[in-house]
Parts: sequence; structure tokens; C-alpha cells
Amino acid sequence: MSLLVVGTIALDSIETPHGRVEEETGGSATYFALAASRFVPVRLVGVVGEDFPEERLSVFGGGAAAPAAGEAGERRALPVDLAGLQRVEGGRTFRWSGRYEGDMNVAETLETQLNVLATFHPELPPAYRRTPFVFLANASPEVQLEVLGQVEAPRFVMADTMNWWIEKEREGLAEVLRRVDGVVLNDEEARGLTGERNLIRAGTRVLDLGPKVVVVKKGEHGAFLFSTYLFHALPAYPVGEVVDPTGAGDSFAGGLMGYLARSGRVSIGNLKRGLVYGTVAASFTVAGFGTGALARATREDFDIRLQEFLHFVA
Amino acid sequence: MSLLVVGTIALDSIETPHGRVEEETGGSATYFALAASRFVPVRLVGVVGEDFPEERLSVFGGGAAAPAAGEAGERRALPVDLAGLQRVEGGRTFRWSGRYEGDMNVAETLETQLNVLATFHPELPPAYRRTPFVFLANASPEVQLEVLGQVEAPRFVMADTMNWWIEKEREGLAEVLRRVDGVVLNDEEARGLTGERNLIRAGTRVLDLGPKVVVVKKGEHGAFLFSTYLFHALPAYPVGEVVDPTGAGDSFAGGLMGYLARSGRVSIGNLKRGLVYGTVAASFTVAGFGTGALARATREDFDIRLQEFLHFVA
Repeated sequence: MSLLVVGTIALDSIETPHGRVEEETGGSATYFALAASRFVPVRLVGVVGEDFPEERLSVFGGGAAAPAAGEAGERRALPVDLAGLQRVEGGRTFRWSGRYEGDMNVAETLETQLNVLATFHPELPPAYRRTPFVFLANASPEVQLEVLGQVEAPRFVMADTMNWWIEKEREGLAEVLRRVDGVVLNDEEARGLTGERNLIRAGTRVLDLGPKVVVVKKGEHGAFLFSTYLFHALPAYPVGEVVDPTGAGDSFAGGLMGYLARSGRVSIGNLKRGLVYGTVAASFTVAGFGTGALARATREDFDIRLQEFLHFVA
Repeated sequence: MSLLVVGTIALDSIETPHGRVEEETGGSATYFALAASRFVPVRLVGVVGEDFPEERLSVFGGGAAAPAAGEAGERRALPVDLAGLQRVEGGRTFRWSGRYEGDMNVAETLETQLNVLATFHPELPPAYRRTPFVFLANASPEVQLEVLGQVEAPRFVMADTMNWWIEKEREGLAEVLRRVDGVVLNDEEARGLTGERNLIRAGTRVLDLGPKVVVVKKGEHGAFLFSTYLFHALPAYPVGEVVDPTGAGDSFAGGLMGYLARSGRVSIGNLKRGLVYGTVAASFTVAGFGTGALARATREDFDIRLQEFLHFVA
């Protein structure tokens, strides 16, 4: 089944102990779509400025000219459908720059230039409105609610967020959480949202806020899944050299949602398997700067690592 | 099969966000033996001062008067055999005081009084020398080598250590590592020992130093097992309220070694199952101050949590 992501496309400047890159293609929707499109065609809604290099869109396997595909057209659709990508004339693309040090678990943000993101209002092409699987990447609750107002009878909607919105837009975020089926958070976000330092309690408390599925990402330490009557824990796929963690969380969500959309059904078994594809996707992402390593990984590469992972934890 | 532990018995003063206790029974051998004795009789070698309250020994299910049990006597032996426990007349027991804050992953040591530990030389009762399973709890490499010089043809020897010895007694520790079968380290120790920040690389590098089995403990994040041709990862048993992490690592080692000794054979399957018992043992320990919660947990409690854990990760 098809999958919609609404999120950012960015130009990232990143410094890690392994080096630095300037204005690499990044953004939550980018990493999510790259991971998820290994499983199903992905419909991407986002915004770039006039300065965004057209050739960068080739990372999605297509381009801005890709047709808006209905369910029927999907079979021939390119992996990532960019019909919902807005390009703002005269605008500048969202830029983020950050630095990772030490254990590289947390990015230090050096600069955020919202640019075209500051006035972004997602508009779903009509063909996108009935997409069964929807991912609301990290954005203001206001923007996430605008998307929820445009989708029709989705089967499974999952949202991401960040500490900024937890602190500044608590009410809007509460409304989002009441209206989605699932949420992915990292450990600090789960703690910030609930005021519980203990992650097990924090995850359980998030369930009380509305979502029936709560995924807490712990970076190199794996992830927890909380749902009614269910707790599940998995380690991360072991990575011997983390070059750049940027996008790992979005890739994780992409692997998870991509697999769920492929399966068509959100069962406990599919959630668990999806989490493994999530950690596999993230393991590719962190192996290089930007999107390169993830973009090169094929579905077969994903499946090989999934099998490896299952051996590691069995 | 029987299991020998050489380590500390301490009087711990501990402060955590949940409160504080003064001079609780603690020490590596104590926590190890309490966990391991759920599986097999444990022979404890350690030292206390004249000030150590005799009635505290009841936590081991026996007392200083327990007979030194040979293999034949073991069936009637009390869970923890204290024939190897030295009491130094006029001496003061080893004392440690520490504080945990925030996420409680790391203790801040406030004071260490070695006291009788400063001049401790372990002496194995003759009946202990042929113990098949041996655990060298954290101690100076010198003391650990003294034990290795007294055991005869052990089947599986595992050692613990700490950053202090990694920094100060590198050569002695290298000798220990060459002579043992396995080592348990926490994440920071594995990094300190190898100079590798990445844990996957660090664990792999420890194998090069000698041990055929390397267990890296990550506290609330679970553990990694490295061996030739094998990498295994497991999350921790989820604990909703960590009251006091003291002794978690030693309990973990006790659950692991206890199960291995019970099985009698160090296979990959037994190692994996032993790691689960390790995280189960630690989950009891951290639920209360000192040894109380672990001491109350029965073998049946261990087995119930083992089954729960297997559901959480399946």
C-alpha cells in the first residue's frame, strides 16, 4: 500500500570526528523516503527553495517531473513520487548545521535557517489524500494538524516530534497525539513529554496521551515498542563505525513505516519486523555522511542485514 | 557444578534520588553470590573486618560456620559456602560510599576505605581448588593472578575489572586476560581497555587480548556478547523504577555464571540463556537499596522474569 510522508528537505552542513560536509541533501522526509521506498512507493510532501539543485532530486530515483500517481499509476511510479514537493520561487531551502562529538549520540545544532520552511503549508495533491499509511515527520503541531485535515480515512498515521514542540507547543502536540495512531520519539523526547526519567515509565505514559503504538528510539541502544498489552525491546544493528548519525531516526521510521505499508496491516508481528527494518535502515544511514550510504543500499542489502540481526538477537 | 567467586564484601553507603542508606551489606562477591546461588551452591572467598556484623552473613542463607563442602557434601551445603571468608581480627571491613544522580547510569564515588582489602590475599580452602567454574570479581590483577595460581584445571574462568586497573595495572591485567576464558566489562571499561570509542569495535578488540568470551554490560541498555564467530545483543529487562543500581553488574555476572555452572557446559546457547538470567538478576537488584530485593527473589521469580524477557524480545 502507498505511503505518504510530510517533512523537510534540507541542506545540511555536518561536522563529525570523521570529517565535515557542506550543504549535503538532508531533511526528515528525505531520509524517511529513501528508507521507506525500499518497500513501497513513497509520496513526498515538502518544500524547497529556488536554490535547491534540481539534480539533487535524483537521489529519490526520479525528479520533480515525476507524475502524481494514483493507486493505478503506482506500479510504474518511480520509488519516490515528488508531485507534492513545493518549490518556492525566490525562496531559500531550509538549512541545518550541526556537530557531533564524543559518542555522537546527540547533535549540537550550530545553526538553523528555516527559510522556506517558515511559511510552509503542506498541500496534498488530490491523489494523495486517500493514502493509507501516513508519516508526519517532525514539524510544528500546526503543520502536522494541517496534514491530518487533508487525509481521508488513513489506515495508520504515525507522527514524530522534537523537544522544541514538546516545550513550546504542548497543546497543539497533545491534539496531534490524540489524533494519530502511533508516535516515534527518541529517549529524551519521551522523557520531556512525560516528565518521567525512567524510559519504561515514560513510554507507558505516552500511551495515555493517545497513540496506540509508541516507539522510543535509543540510537545505538536500539528501541522500545509500547502498545496495549505489549512491550517489546530490540538492540540496534551493530555498527562498527558511525560516520554521521544525521538522519538515523528518520531512516528508522522509514524502514518501519515502509515495511508496515508493504504488509498492509499493522499487527504486532509486523510492528516487530518493521522495527528491525528500521534499525537496519538506520545502520546504513550512519555509515556515511548524508544520504549516500542509505541511497546505495538495495532492498536485498536490507534483507541480508535483517537476517544478520535476527541471528544477533536470537 | 560448583562455582567459586573471589571478590569483595563491603559496607556500602549509598545515596540515590530515592533516598539514602548507611553501611548496607554490599560488595562484588556478595551480589554475585546472591544471584548465582539461585542456580548452584557458591563458594565465596573474601575478607571482612572484625566489625562486620555476624548476623549480616545470614543474607547468604548460612553463616561463617557453614562447612567447607566438597562435591559430595554439596547437596546438603547451604546456598553460599563461606568457608573461604577471612575475618581479620582488629580489622575494619572495606567501605564504599557513592551517589547516583540523573539517569543513575554512573555512580559518583564519594569515598573508598580499603581497610582489610588493602592487605587481602585470597586463600582457597583445599576443597575449593578444583572448582570447575570460577569468577574473579573486580580486584587488582595481582589478587586475581593469586587466585589463578591456586585453582586447578578449572573449566571456565571469567574475570571482571575496572577502569582503575585498566589505567594503573595494565600489564598485570593483560596477564589476567591472557589466562582467563571470559571477561565481563561495562561499556566504559571496554572503551578504556581498547581505546576504541565504538563499542562494537571495542568488544571485538578485547577478544584479541585473550578471552574467548567477552561480555560488555551496558546497564539499562542491555549487553553485548562477543566471541569467535559470534556477536549477540540483548536489551535489559525493563525496570520501571530503579531505586539503587549498586551491585547490578555483579548480579548480572552472578546470573550468567550461575546458569553456566548449573548447565555445566559453556555453549553458545547456554551463554545466551545465561545473559538473560544475568539481566533478570540485575533487574531484582536495582529495584531496592542494597541486597534486599535480590535476596528475596527466588529461583521461581528468576524463571518468571526470564519468560517475560523472552516475550519482550521475541
